[in-house]
Amino acid sequence: MKQDGRLVRIVDVARAAGVSPSTVSKALNDSGSLKAATRERVREAADRLGFVSDAGARALSMRRTFIVGLLSTDDIGRFSMPVMQGAENAFAVGEISTLVATARHDAVREQHHLRTLIARRVDGIIVTGKTTDPREPIEVPVPVVYALAPSADPDDISVLPDDAAGMRLVVDHLRTLGHRRVAHIAGRADQNTSRVRLAALQEALAEAGMELVGEPLFGEWSEPWGRRAVDLVLRDAAEPPVTAIVCASDQLARAAADRLRERGLRVPDDIAVTGYDNWHVMWSASRPPLTTVDMELEALGRRAAERLLAEIQEADTGPRGIEYLPPRLVARGSTIAGD
Amino acid sequence: MKQDGRLVRIVDVARAAGVSPSTVSKALNDSGSLKAATRERVREAADRLGFVSDAGARALSMRRTFIVGLLSTDDIGRFSMPVMQGAENAFAVGEISTLVATARHDAVREQHHLRTLIARRVDGIIVTGKTTDPREPIEVPVPVVYALAPSADPDDISVLPDDAAGMRLVVDHLRTLGHRRVAHIAGRADQNTSRVRLAALQEALAEAGMELVGEPLFGEWSEPWGRRAVDLVLRDAAEPPVTAIVCASDQLARAAADRLRERGLRVPDDIAVTGYDNWHVMWSASRPPLTTVDMELEALGRRAAERLLAEIQEADTGPRGIEYLPPRLVARGSTIAGD
Repeated sequence: MKQDGRLVRIVDVARAAGVSPSTVSKALNDSGSLKAATRERVREAADRLGFVSDAGARALSMRRTFIVGLLSTDDIGRFSMPVMQGAENAFAVGEISTLVATARHDAVREQHHLRTLIARRVDGIIVTGKTTDPREPIEVPVPVVYALAPSADPDDISVLPDDAAGMRLVVDHLRTLGHRRVAHIAGRADQNTSRVRLAALQEALAEAGMELVGEPLFGEWSEPWGRRAVDLVLRDAAEPPVTAIVCASDQLARAAADRLRERGLRVPDDIAVTGYDNWHVMWSASRPPLTTVDMELEALGRRAAERLLAEIQEADTGPRGIEYLPPRLVARGSTIAGD
Repeated sequence: MKQDGRLVRIVDVARAAGVSPSTVSKALNDSGSLKAATRERVREAADRLGFVSDAGARALSMRRTFIVGLLSTDDIGRFSMPVMQGAENAFAVGEISTLVATARHDAVREQHHLRTLIARRVDGIIVTGKTTDPREPIEVPVPVVYALAPSADPDDISVLPDDAAGMRLVVDHLRTLGHRRVAHIAGRADQNTSRVRLAALQEALAEAGMELVGEPLFGEWSEPWGRRAVDLVLRDAAEPPVTAIVCASDQLARAAADRLRERGLRVPDDIAVTGYDNWHVMWSASRPPLTTVDMELEALGRRAAERLLAEIQEADTGPRGIEYLPPRLVARGSTIAGD
């Protein structure tokens, strides 16, 4: 519980309420003789600042509404949807209901939603979004966990897929299959996801004694870019310069497989292709089906819910800052011939 | 808005803020002359007690919580997501929060969710799902509107996309372009959507003096089926037996365009292709981009929210049974050469 990244202390509450720290203590513990108005003023200040004393925590648990908020930075989309679903499953087991609010990248709308959630006395809030780019922390007097879209404040709790581990799984898989020279087709260069995956790819390749051939190809998250990027990889070389293409999404990988086939190359015999996301629509439409990485976003949503509940009950033992959850490699025909 | 099961009244706010009820009214309506500090104190008290200022009077007279439930028959997926988003937008304008619950085709889970929503004293419930197959109505003591997934009870309120109108738009578009002989590639035969679209297609073709060549091809909602179905349409004919293929989804249409190209046919010059859904991932990846039908699902969600609010306020003037919302044709390169 903090504001501006600092823990709220009893003296902060005292200052805000215009009373002494001992008065704060009396007011929050319902002890001593205080005017009702003073007690009320202290409570208001404590609530506003998000101060939780031991007694406050007890009071908080007694006042629980068993409703949590789920705020999405953007829309509820392909990535935040499974996160939301995982959280909702975890909450449903605990008889907790989820109020959903989408900010659509609109700061005013987000503030409106936060005021509404607080007015509804939610026990806590999960903040999510479609990218892993750090976002400004929200200022509310209840526990918050960031899922997929991490808080820029390292003292907050954020739960993220381990994209670096995902790329290491891909490299390890390709190394096992005998690949030594790979190309990388990626999406938007200005996103945290892209940078993290590239860095992990480069490091893992170096450790495995493998080579990243050419510049990493950044563009956008679309099939047209995936097809175009394959042409850039192949250029006019008589022989393909690589035996594998590591793509940063299933959309890109599926497009790459399409384009390679159109260029007369066999996947995976001439060039293997890997994706990222394990998105059924894409991996199953690809010819052959895609080897890819599953970020386990529903598990991520569950984990975020667990952390939030633990925070609400002041029983959280997980790490502050970013907690990374392990992804899973799914091997299919785009790397394994005959599959 | 209630606390501890009781309705929060204006006098509660007045007592908490240490002012008169008329002062509360002035403060929350930003009228009259009050000290800023007083106004602030009242606002804080109202917030703390969960008294919603904008709609306070309505809350008093109607005992509303300004919380609605959104129950999905299945997961929140590609179709129910925009419906949910549209509803959430409509509700946010009215300062109403949405509790989300997903039943995942599990009757026990659904009953659990409904009990929880009712225990939370929601003002009403929107029921949604991924298909337009009629579902058993839910039994709850609050107003209900069914969006996308209609109730089997004709006295309930259901809001659906007008799939028959969508197919008529497609046929009209193809007729204008001079097509006379078309094939139909569809998804699962056992779904209401498939039956409705086929019946509308047949009727519209007959009215336009056009011909459905061969049997309608039912399979599944996947690209592999779309590609395979194209082979069935073309068979071993020297000349394509049709000049257009009407597909029941963008996934099928995109796969059809891929397969036609692989068979050496030009889209749209040799064979035009239409999709359904206006799903960006698919229409934009298709070569050429897809002419398709947009079901306007977000507008559908908004409409469902409006109907629900009207029902809650006992001011609904819309039809009982199914209300159909008009879709929109989006013409692109898969039917218009050079686009």
